Amino acid sequence: MSASELSDTSKLCVHTITTKPWSIEEAMDKYSEAGIGGITVWRQWLDGRDIASVGGKLRERNLEIVSLCRGGFFPAKTQLGLDEAIEDNRRAIREAAELGAPMIVLVCGAVPGQPLEESRKQIADGIAAVLPLAEEHGIRLAIEPLHPLYADDRSAINTMASANAVCDQLDHSLVGIAADVYHIWWDPDLAAQIQLTGEKGRLFAFHICDWLTPTSDLLNDRGLMGEGCIDVRGIRAMVEATGFSGFNEVEVFSDRWWSQDQDEFLQAIRSAYLKHC
Amino acid sequence: MSASELSDTSKLCVHTITTKPWSIEEAMDKYSEAGIGGITVWRQWLDGRDIASVGGKLRERNLEIVSLCRGGFFPAKTQLGLDEAIEDNRRAIREAAELGAPMIVLVCGAVPGQPLEESRKQIADGIAAVLPLAEEHGIRLAIEPLHPLYADDRSAINTMASANAVCDQLDHSLVGIAADVYHIWWDPDLAAQIQLTGEKGRLFAFHICDWLTPTSDLLNDRGLMGEGCIDVRGIRAMVEATGFSGFNEVEVFSDRWWSQDQDEFLQAIRSAYLKHC
Repeated sequence: MSASELSDTSKLCVHTITTKPWSIEEAMDKYSEAGIGGITVWRQWLDGRDIASVGGKLRERNLEIVSLCRGGFFPAKTQLGLDEAIEDNRRAIREAAELGAPMIVLVCGAVPGQPLEESRKQIADGIAAVLPLAEEHGIRLAIEPLHPLYADDRSAINTMASANAVCDQLDHSLVGIAADVYHIWWDPDLAAQIQLTGEKGRLFAFHICDWLTPTSDLLNDRGLMGEGCIDVRGIRAMVEATGFSGFNEVEVFSDRWWSQDQDEFLQAIRSAYLKHC
Repeated sequence: MSASELSDTSKLCVHTITTKPWSIEEAMDKYSEAGIGGITVWRQWLDGRDIASVGGKLRERNLEIVSLCRGGFFPAKTQLGLDEAIEDNRRAIREAAELGAPMIVLVCGAVPGQPLEESRKQIADGIAAVLPLAEEHGIRLAIEPLHPLYADDRSAINTMASANAVCDQLDHSLVGIAADVYHIWWDPDLAAQIQLTGEKGRLFAFHICDWLTPTSDLLNDRGLMGEGCIDVRGIRAMVEATGFSGFNEVEVFSDRWWSQDQDEFLQAIRSAYLKHC
């Protein structure tokens, strides 16, 4: 399967963490000037800001707010921990509503040593607990399956199939999946799972970056599209074949790129997007 | 599911790479003195040795030779590369026969940027090409599914299901699976896949170690059993429930442990084995 080349950046979204050195004020001006269509705001970028006002400024700059990143981290070993996680996710939903973001990305969480089955149950219970508030504000919750290398302490949901299982269980139109190429590219069942996710109407988001060989850091050594081994265009084709017409969200954690001039990096993102996605 | 505690080290096997600073001569004496029942020999440890003579010395010390590690790395971008890989695997089969090892572990290989489907096809073709020689010498070939974090350049076989698919395709009594907890512990389908592998009579080997949180290096920061988050005993129970009665093979790549006194490390291995496996 292959997709046609992208001819413009109207469907390009950048996560604020991708240009980590920039504040939300810098990011919104830079993204807007570069003709980028969308922005996913990480919650830390809202610290100390009037959230509604930030949302207004983003809309003034014609940046579509794709999602708020991130909720999740539901599993815990104590009832207090479980309760705190639910409260934090409720805060995230209120923040999304204030910002004008229609969706929250969930990095679901895991506790080292706790059986993954138990964590998965806590994740489903946690999402169920915050769903009434999500309904009230009309906020979608996108479960992001994380690469199995993060199964110890970041997420017990490590495949599209596992994310689909939680969605099946909750069976709610506001609960879907954020598919990130970094986490799922290796999956032998990928094409079928993306198709299924689309058929169920729950493919909510599509994140892009690349996997470097070698990878020097488990968290902050992602590549820009084209720098690594992921067939981003091929996966985009699978995603678009489901009818998905949302944004292609660039989410790159990279100490290497963060240490460079961010204006040049943003240009590199635009070029890589048009050339490799 | 849970397994009973281990009461002795008769089913404990150590990979020579686990005690990397030791030569094969040192390793065989030390393992034997420590009452360890089995050894898996990495091919580099045979460099410059008379292989048959090493095999004899291992048997004299009552060390059961569990397997030769490793063959594989079949995928390549050129015909020459494919041919060379097959030749190297034939060499490994001859070495195993000379050593008196009944089995070779296959780290199947992958080429960055080459579609995983293509690599999987090359892997199946490569194994098929060396099977006649394996038959001649009666050497089992154990496909080791590798953690998806190695899908870029080490193996395109990243789940038990994927390994089982190749075994189904080749459908040969000498082709089976080496299950390593490091690679498979996160798999939501693990229990069912281990059971299936056993039912098909192809669960050939069981490797143990642990997953550290945090993990500082993608290759050489494995933990000793009990140091990390893997339920080794629980997975051993699944393995033994299939009727598996082979060795529990300790395969730890660890710059941290390799930098320490290896006699003390071997004692730590024995203790961890009896306490956590």
